[in-house]
Amino acid sequence: MKSFRKELWFRTPQRRTFINITREMQNCVNESGIQEGMLLCNAMHITASIFINDDESGLHYDFETWLEKLAPEKPHDQYRHNVAEDNADAHLKRTIMGREVVVAITCGKLDLGPWEQIFYGEFDGKRDKRVLVKIIGE
Amino acid sequence: MKSFRKELWFRTPQRRTFINITREMQNCVNESGIQEGMLLCNAMHITASIFINDDESGLHYDFETWLEKLAPEKPHDQYRHNVAEDNADAHLKRTIMGREVVVAITCGKLDLGPWEQIFYGEFDGKRDKRVLVKIIGE
Amino acid sequence: MKSFRKELWFRTPQRRTFINITREMQNCVNESGIQEGMLLCNAMHITASIFINDDESGLHYDFETWLEKLAPEKPHDQYRHNVAEDNADAHLKRTIMGREVVVAITCGKLDLGPWEQIFYGEFDGKRDKRVLVKIIGE
Repeated sequence: MKSFRKELWFRTPQRRTFINITREMQNCVNESGIQEGMLLCNAMHITASIFINDDESGLHYDFETWLEKLAPEKPHDQYRHNVAEDNADAHLKRTIMGREVVVAITCGKLDLGPWEQIFYGEFDGKRDKRVLVKIIGE
Repeated sequence: MKSFRKELWFRTPQRRTFINITREMQNCVNESGIQEGMLLCNAMHITASIFINDDESGLHYDFETWLEKLAPEKPHDQYRHNVAEDNADAHLKRTIMGREVVVAITCGKLDLGPWEQIFYGEFDGKRDKRVLVKIIGE
Repeated sequence: MKSFRKELWFRTPQRRTFINITREMQNCVNESGIQEGMLLCNAMHITASIFINDDESGLHYDFETWLEKLAPEKPHDQYRHNVAEDNADAHLKRTIMGREVVVAITCGKLDLGPWEQIFYGEFDGKRDKRVLVKIIGE
């Protein structure tokens, strides 16, 4: 069994944004030399998400609006977590979007459906944050 | 390390439905010959879900009602994604239910709790859609 | 490839609570002797969750309040599942929080970000319930 590990770093200018990282994930698979296995990609921070969905700007706008309805940022003092912090909503939003994805690797390629794209979802940006990629297989 | 891959195809007559695929998953484990490992099962389409819960029709009705409250289908024009499409709600519903499950395989069996059943959740049916099963182990 | 399996048992005095199990997870990794691989931890019951977030009591209070808003426990008869049961809300709450986490193992350690802690989320306690830990790797 082979294994591979890499960290990706992000520092987004906005508080909230989605970044397509599918190409970086395929680069990791290439670098690993693994032909058959599984790739785990997870946010290492608890106010960010890795998720799979469509790369369509209208849908991303809908996600932002929907998450803000389900877990509104303001007023900040509606959350007990927001004593020294103002990011309680980011913890909740990331919970809905998910911490991680596991993707199959087949014949050295990410085994994704036709519209599946892997995204980094930032909900409390403007600071350095990391994503972990771990691949195991052969 | 062994690996196994299979696609399942679905075409549901309804827009939204839940289908118990636990038996198909055990069949994949049997076919793979893998005794110890992990099974990944994921929707390959971004308006469908794989999730684990109870096979109880009352609960499935509650899920449908609840998802429709959190991410209503109509009016279609409340979503920017719905220009050429009408399925923005399906992307949101599947996000809550999840894209994938990872299940342990122990002694050649799906290592599930007493009530755990694996479901395909369709939120935009009436078309051919695929599910990926990938197993790694020994 | 090596594999490792263990069950953890919980019986919480409250209906709903969060328990930090990060140390138990690292103990499992130590016991397995696996240096590089993946750890799957999942609730074996469908009214409980394994999730990763911050070990901060204010945030846990916010989670409880938020989940109760999105999927209220009462009135029990709002749910069709609640005929012989009263725990439909627990199935919904656990869906939002997630059934499982997959964590990378690197150099014999859980490969977690600085604030990542692994929790058992109970939404229908006061009874014996199990969590499965499965590790594969080398």
